[in-house]
Parts: sequence; C-alpha cells; structure tokens
Amino acid sequence: MPHISLPDGLPGITSAFAFRPETAKPMRELAEVLLRGLNTLTSAERETIAAFVSSRNDCHFCHASHRAAAAHHSGGDYAVVDAVTRDPQSAPVSAKLKALLTIAGHVQQSGKLVTDDDVAAARAEGATDVEIHDTVLIAAAFSMFNRYVDGLATVTPVGDELYDPMGRRMASEGYVRK
Amino acid sequence: MPHISLPDGLPGITSAFAFRPETAKPMRELAEVLLRGLNTLTSAERETIAAFVSSRNDCHFCHASHRAAAAHHSGGDYAVVDAVTRDPQSAPVSAKLKALLTIAGHVQQSGKLVTDDDVAAARAEGATDVEIHDTVLIAAAFSMFNRYVDGLATVTPVGDELYDPMGRRMASEGYVRK
Repeated sequence: MPHISLPDGLPGITSAFAFRPETAKPMRELAEVLLRGLNTLTSAERETIAAFVSSRNDCHFCHASHRAAAAHHSGGDYAVVDAVTRDPQSAPVSAKLKALLTIAGHVQQSGKLVTDDDVAAARAEGATDVEIHDTVLIAAAFSMFNRYVDGLATVTPVGDELYDPMGRRMASEGYVRK
Repeated sequence: MPHISLPDGLPGITSAFAFRPETAKPMRELAEVLLRGLNTLTSAERETIAAFVSSRNDCHFCHASHRAAAAHHSGGDYAVVDAVTRDPQSAPVSAKLKALLTIAGHVQQSGKLVTDDDVAAARAEGATDVEIHDTVLIAAAFSMFNRYVDGLATVTPVGDELYDPMGRRMASEGYVRK
C-alpha cells in the first residue's frame, strides 16, 4: 500500500504524477528529452541504460517498464536489454554502449566513482561528450525516478502483461502529455 | 578537471546546465517547484533537506550551495542547517522536520528503506501527504543532482566565500532563468 493517498488504479510513477502535477511536468519533460529527444544514441540504447540502472536500484516498476520500452524501440525484442541487465560486458551491444554502461553503473552507486579511465574508454570507442553527458544524466535521473517510485511505495503490478503495452506506449507516444 | 568539455568559468552544476540547455530547463523547473514553489514547508526547511541529502551523498558543491540557500532563507543564519547536517535528531528544528529528515535519509540510500513507521511518525507530528511526498521527491531529486554534478567531475570551488552569495541568489532569485 502506498505511503500516502495516491489516486487509485494507476500503477507506479503514474499515480505519483497524478498526485502532484506541479512536479510531474518537469519530470516528464526530462524523461522525454533524455530518452526520446534528438540524439546520436538511439532511444533503444538510452532506454536500455534506464532499464539497467533501474534494475541495479532494484526498482521493479521502472525496470519492467523501461525494459519494455527498450524492447519496443527494437521491434519488440527483449533479448538485448535482458542480456545487458544480466551482464553488460557480455551482452550483444556495441563496445561504445558497453563503455557507457560502465559509466552508468558507477553513477548509479555514486557520481564520484566515475573515473578518467571510464571516460577515456568510452571516448576510445567513439563516444562523444554529449553521449557521455547524457549517459551520466540518464543514470542520475533514474537514481531519482527509482527512489521516487519506491520511496512512496507506489503500486507495483507483478507480471509482464501490463508492462509490455506500457512500454509500447512509452516508446511510441513518449512521456509528455499532449 | 571535468570529464567532458564543459564551459569555462562556471562552477558545479551551472557548467553542466550551460553545456546542455535541453536538459537544464526541466531540471531547473523541478528545483524551482520543489524548493521555492507554494508549500506548507518553508523554503528554509526544503533547502535544509536538500543540503542534508547532498551532504550524505558527499557532494560538496550541492551541499555548500544549498546550505547557503537554507541560511539565506533564515536571515543568513547557518547554525540550523549545519546542526541538521551533523545530526538531524538533536538539531533545533521541529519534530515534524526531524521525522521528515528520517524519511529523506532513507530515500538517499534507497526508496525501499522508507518504512510505514517512518511515515506514521511524520504524520503523528502533523506532516501532510504533500509534505511527505515532497520530502521523498527532494531527497530523490538530490540523489540525481548530486550524481550529475560529481559524475561529470564539474569544477567544485573550495571555501565558503563563493557559496554565500550563490546561496543568497538561489534564495532570492530562484532556479529558473528569466
């Protein structure tokens, strides 16, 4: 049961957004820019970073929903995002994304853990400053979203059947309400 | 030295905001609503929560600047915010704020650590649902801001002389560019 009186019938972060539209607006906009804005990283790659960080933070709602969004940016294929969550370094993704996931994994613990070597390794695989910046900020932002969802004890549905269509909507319609 | 080529001469998060205005906009708006928007928690109380969480995350730039903002919402007095950072439970603040700081301290580690007892204790001291919500979100948001500032290794000035006028401006002018 949620810690505060959140609107009934809405799962996870959507109930918190409905409770407090004043803070929902910039949070939705941040997710939209980070995950769906123009970028040399694909939305599938960025959603994969979001799912990976949410998994490390043990936030089931965020992990399941962004896992599904990553899959729906890749034709509905969950194999890559799931391989990344299990072990980024052996997953079938580019060397650049592996290096960025190392940075994201450090940020998830503490920003101070990101080393010059982490960044040099990403740059050696072709990562740009904006890609490194956005990786740091996606990992930081999900350290917020994950704490928000679980700190309020929002309702977390179990099972994949809800998250698959949710992820499809996130991928196709995005995060900002029209 | 920052991990990426951030604009020279800007301290901490301001250099990252200048580098990436697309993400700066919603992040500035979130800070404005959370710390300076209409609220039954004073801005001094909310900046104190922000400074406390930033201290726990060992983010010097965010701690020093929001410590100064909290002080300037209280006539320039640093004693209360510093006492909270040292030990919230013995600090000269209301029982309600102490209970909210317990929640914030748990969110700083993981949202899952917030217990029903934490929330019941805050409510017993008069905390409303919005106050509990905003406490969770301030702690979550600073778990983002702190990781962002340190994950990019932004320039962190040492010494209080820069942060005092910065905190005065944050308290009086806020976070959104006019």
